[in-house]
Amino acid sequence: MNFAAAIAFSGSRIDRADHVRSDAVALEALTDWRARLLLMDGLSPQITPEGGLGWGSLADVTEGSELVFLGLGEDGRGCFAAVSPQLMGSTAPANPRLWQEMAALRADELATFGGARSLVDWHARHRFCARCGAPTRLAKGGWQRNCTSETCAAEHFPRVDPVTIMLVEHDGCLLLGRQPRFPAGNYSALAGFVEPGETIEEAVAREVFEEAGLRARDVTYVASQPWPFPSSLMMGCHAHADDRALTIDTHELEDARWFTRDEVADAVASADTGGRGQAFGAPPRFAIANHLLRWWLARG
Amino acid sequence: MNFAAAIAFSGSRIDRADHVRSDAVALEALTDWRARLLLMDGLSPQITPEGGLGWGSLADVTEGSELVFLGLGEDGRGCFAAVSPQLMGSTAPANPRLWQEMAALRADELATFGGARSLVDWHARHRFCARCGAPTRLAKGGWQRNCTSETCAAEHFPRVDPVTIMLVEHDGCLLLGRQPRFPAGNYSALAGFVEPGETIEEAVAREVFEEAGLRARDVTYVASQPWPFPSSLMMGCHAHADDRALTIDTHELEDARWFTRDEVADAVASADTGGRGQAFGAPPRFAIANHLLRWWLARG
Repeated sequence: MNFAAAIAFSGSRIDRADHVRSDAVALEALTDWRARLLLMDGLSPQITPEGGLGWGSLADVTEGSELVFLGLGEDGRGCFAAVSPQLMGSTAPANPRLWQEMAALRADELATFGGARSLVDWHARHRFCARCGAPTRLAKGGWQRNCTSETCAAEHFPRVDPVTIMLVEHDGCLLLGRQPRFPAGNYSALAGFVEPGETIEEAVAREVFEEAGLRARDVTYVASQPWPFPSSLMMGCHAHADDRALTIDTHELEDARWFTRDEVADAVASADTGGRGQAFGAPPRFAIANHLLRWWLARG
Repeated sequence: MNFAAAIAFSGSRIDRADHVRSDAVALEALTDWRARLLLMDGLSPQITPEGGLGWGSLADVTEGSELVFLGLGEDGRGCFAAVSPQLMGSTAPANPRLWQEMAALRADELATFGGARSLVDWHARHRFCARCGAPTRLAKGGWQRNCTSETCAAEHFPRVDPVTIMLVEHDGCLLLGRQPRFPAGNYSALAGFVEPGETIEEAVAREVFEEAGLRARDVTYVASQPWPFPSSLMMGCHAHADDRALTIDTHELEDARWFTRDEVADAVASADTGGRGQAFGAPPRFAIANHLLRWWLARG
């Protein structure tokens, strides 16, 4: 089974066409009536009646918007997203239907939406130069912002935050935890941001110790996922613990427990039919944690 | 051979003590006469006559500096670094002796310095709120900055930029490239930043295609490294290519070539004695690219 293919938010078919971004003439030529605009309401996709991503033309761009070049479609046309004036400097209101809408999308459409969402949100929240405070201006088709102060002229790039998320194993059981915001009975893999000055493996060991009081060893990388809320790179790992006694950081976790293979298998199977396992509810299929549980079960 | 242990800038012995950062009382108690200050000239370490990292006390902090809590030393004392007023909003001048100075440090000291450098540099270049342009204020012992505008109040976190760096293999040979800024005759692994909306594996495939015109398959993760210039997370990977015909992106690379196992072995062995291989010069031992070449040779 190819697990990489199944990871949500990966597999966009849009060609990022990096060479176009720095080529003002090529970019201008693509910014024409044939270009396609990803239709969004705030940071949510506009879904067509058929359940696909809604696309319009540049005629649909709200006045005062910034235009971001997503890349080339399979037909060679320029694909764009717009940063609307309403989004600039603001936080888009939560959309309670977002997960349901995303569930309707094809895998490659979900990936295209996720990448566009991260990029549009970055522009919306990076209107000013962090170094000097002057306004910034979109550059390179939206893959850069430049400070407008001539004495500063700092260049800023879209942010991607690496996050480790890990299955910790001991004696055939997996450690999973729950945060207060999770649906009742749900458990997922522990996770945390990678900090300056540490490897992925060091970040995994630190998080497991901070959150559960366990020493992790033999950390291995399993798979990664771009997570567009707002722009994380989830790096799924597996590690072993020699001990099962937990010291839970109750600031981070409401609970953490060891689950047997049968309990994990039951939870994953139940989640596939919209239900909850006997022992716990598994993370949703969009989440890399769900993928990691399947990987662990398939590995035997 | 344990490759993880050998990666430069990893293995700091300072306990990050995450729980202290949010605990103003605990942090205050550690900020006393027993605390240790990492001595730096700009963004460079102050090296002792014995070749170690220089540490002082909080009495050595320049007036007007911001204090960053690095964590707890092995003796339980608070370890700090200072963001001096001279650094704020500026770019520290390049230090031509930096690499020589770093070569004198123990592995764990180099890691401590690297993490501190990334964090201090982030504070120096993030004086203002990217969302609204107001000044920001250090928070949580230096692991956060908060916007001082009450209507905005955005929280900002130290940045870590994930970068893929990859060995591409075909028919027992490795693809390596050189940038114009490399020392004459040196070649290294291709590399590039991960963008919003892509997995590590997708980023590797994109970079290899952009820079060398090759389709990469079977991407596997090998090792990671925090790289403090200014704050990258290098993620070393291996991939296969089915073809050896290259289309080099001359905006990115001056040259790219395939090297045999014997040529790689010779280059790595020569680099260990400060020399250059017959076919090419290997990347320096600080770089994860050097580690990746050793991993590939050892793997056989």
